[in-house]
Amino acid sequence: MPNPRVGCVLVKDEKVIGEGYHQRAGQAHAEINALNSVANLNDIKGATAYVTLEPCSHYGRTGPCSDALINAGVKRVVYAMADPNPKVAHHEQGSGIERMRRAGLVVEGPLMEAQAEALNRGFLHRMRTGRPRVVCKLAMSLDGRTAMASGESQWITGPDARKEVQTLRAQSCAIVTGWSTVKVDGARMTVRSNELPSNVAMSVGDRQPLRVVLDSQTQLQGDEPLFQAEGPVLWVSGLLEPVSQVATSRSTLPTLRSTVEHMSVPLHDGHINLIRMLEELGRRECNNVLVEAGSTLAGAFVQAGLVDELRVYMAPTLMGSTAQPLLTLPIASMSDQRPLNIESITAIGKDWRIIAMPS
Amino acid sequence: MPNPRVGCVLVKDEKVIGEGYHQRAGQAHAEINALNSVANLNDIKGATAYVTLEPCSHYGRTGPCSDALINAGVKRVVYAMADPNPKVAHHEQGSGIERMRRAGLVVEGPLMEAQAEALNRGFLHRMRTGRPRVVCKLAMSLDGRTAMASGESQWITGPDARKEVQTLRAQSCAIVTGWSTVKVDGARMTVRSNELPSNVAMSVGDRQPLRVVLDSQTQLQGDEPLFQAEGPVLWVSGLLEPVSQVATSRSTLPTLRSTVEHMSVPLHDGHINLIRMLEELGRRECNNVLVEAGSTLAGAFVQAGLVDELRVYMAPTLMGSTAQPLLTLPIASMSDQRPLNIESITAIGKDWRIIAMPS
Repeated sequence: MPNPRVGCVLVKDEKVIGEGYHQRAGQAHAEINALNSVANLNDIKGATAYVTLEPCSHYGRTGPCSDALINAGVKRVVYAMADPNPKVAHHEQGSGIERMRRAGLVVEGPLMEAQAEALNRGFLHRMRTGRPRVVCKLAMSLDGRTAMASGESQWITGPDARKEVQTLRAQSCAIVTGWSTVKVDGARMTVRSNELPSNVAMSVGDRQPLRVVLDSQTQLQGDEPLFQAEGPVLWVSGLLEPVSQVATSRSTLPTLRSTVEHMSVPLHDGHINLIRMLEELGRRECNNVLVEAGSTLAGAFVQAGLVDELRVYMAPTLMGSTAQPLLTLPIASMSDQRPLNIESITAIGKDWRIIAMPS
Repeated sequence: MPNPRVGCVLVKDEKVIGEGYHQRAGQAHAEINALNSVANLNDIKGATAYVTLEPCSHYGRTGPCSDALINAGVKRVVYAMADPNPKVAHHEQGSGIERMRRAGLVVEGPLMEAQAEALNRGFLHRMRTGRPRVVCKLAMSLDGRTAMASGESQWITGPDARKEVQTLRAQSCAIVTGWSTVKVDGARMTVRSNELPSNVAMSVGDRQPLRVVLDSQTQLQGDEPLFQAEGPVLWVSGLLEPVSQVATSRSTLPTLRSTVEHMSVPLHDGHINLIRMLEELGRRECNNVLVEAGSTLAGAFVQAGLVDELRVYMAPTLMGSTAQPLLTLPIASMSDQRPLNIESITAIGKDWRIIAMPS
């Protein structure tokens, strides 16, 4: 993060002679790592490079990969998808594809574009819209309920589903939640790294995603468990009118930990503008956002059409018709229902994971 | 119906020499059909019979199958499960197993009992409880809603799911529904045989299951589409007090088709006693009941613990939090939720079929 996941394989005489992937922002790109993995540089001459993303043409933290492939003597490049990064596609030096073609290389692609898209859904979404991709995670009973009328909701799903949510958090740039989840449920929304599968733990280290708390009416004190827990927090409050109240509100804030940032934004109809909030996260190079909230905030995201993926963990139980809904989402007629594409339904322990996209 | 599904295979020298199954009530049992399928009767001597249910010992519409196997010279019988029919298990002539052992046959079993149970869930349930097995079919959105607040609900699920419901109806002895589904939705609840897969159409012919309409307050006129449609109907109303009103109510009934039976039952707290109703269907040798009703009646069945299987067709859509619930089922605390075992979730066209049993 915030870079895309890219891999590169070098092939010569139908044999893989080198491979590499982009491991971390600020470090070498996939192509450079692949070139460096070949012991004898002469072997590279005449080779074909297969890359999951078009090689870059810009001078960023590392030199342009297209030039490196040209200089190493690669003769053919097959790319899975063009780079949607405006820095690449509209760069004054032209795209990587153009540079390599001008140098006489055979450049072919896109190949297996859908699979390449799936590797970098969040990154691509941000490149195309300026906003992160939003996954909304919910836990419900078979009859679509998330909590009792009283608010009681702990442990709807079993340990396997809860463990998977840890991975989902760890792989997100930011987790968005609402004030009541923080205040009433005492949620911390941190990644418990000891609950991660080892491969995930290895790739994320002890990084904690940014936790974003939406608190339009400034109901939080700033001393709730979420603020105490390790890792960065963005606390978004609504600006109160008149201005004098803003001053009052701010003066009552406790001293916040250095990793807690407080931001006041103008409200629209009493609500935080979710698009603006996502744009702010996009500016911070956040690719993947996980919304873990109650039915009110989750419903607002769906209502605004801002959810790219619904991830629902369905528990084998009936919580009944007096319990709280999956989403607070008023719809009056069948013609206004929100159609979905269900990508998969998979058993996770005794629960079931439903992945659905608005269609 | 109302008999169990039974199959029999005769094996000699590791070769199948005959097979048969019970095709229809009043016709020969599986064992007799298997014996009759062997051209040379001498071949049967010393053979092994594999049967999915213990051979019967009673003189019913056909002679006892255990005697037929003994007389034909079968030497070994392997049965999948014992017959739970009280006529067999506690018959004065003893069970089929006992009769065959007394005659010197080697009798082994049960073998693959779970699979044999699955063949005859409805029949076995009736034998054990006196009541039919109840499958409650529902169609819902991903967020657990069955209709708009206005009642609008047509076509939640797609054609594949609706076709499967036709098969479900065709394979049920009775379909139970409520007055509002009949009155408001104009439902007929018949089997449209042209929508059945050919194998199902062949086995059920043009039989229409008994349609049972629960109408505690006698809201129906008796001239709704359901009453006009082909096939038997049992219209269950509540007895009104004082008695003079009963007379009035009855005198206003239209002339009903000969296949429509009207029954008045005492109400409990204004409701038809569902257990009594199921016992009545059990007396009529009904093995499998399909409840196709709105959330109120379906919820009452679940609340009373009378649903043996929930079959939910989930459509890829959100109908929102103002829509009607899956089941009218008031539950106040997490400790009172109704746990389920989800047997399977399977894609049916664009919808998903969830099969769940109360646990």
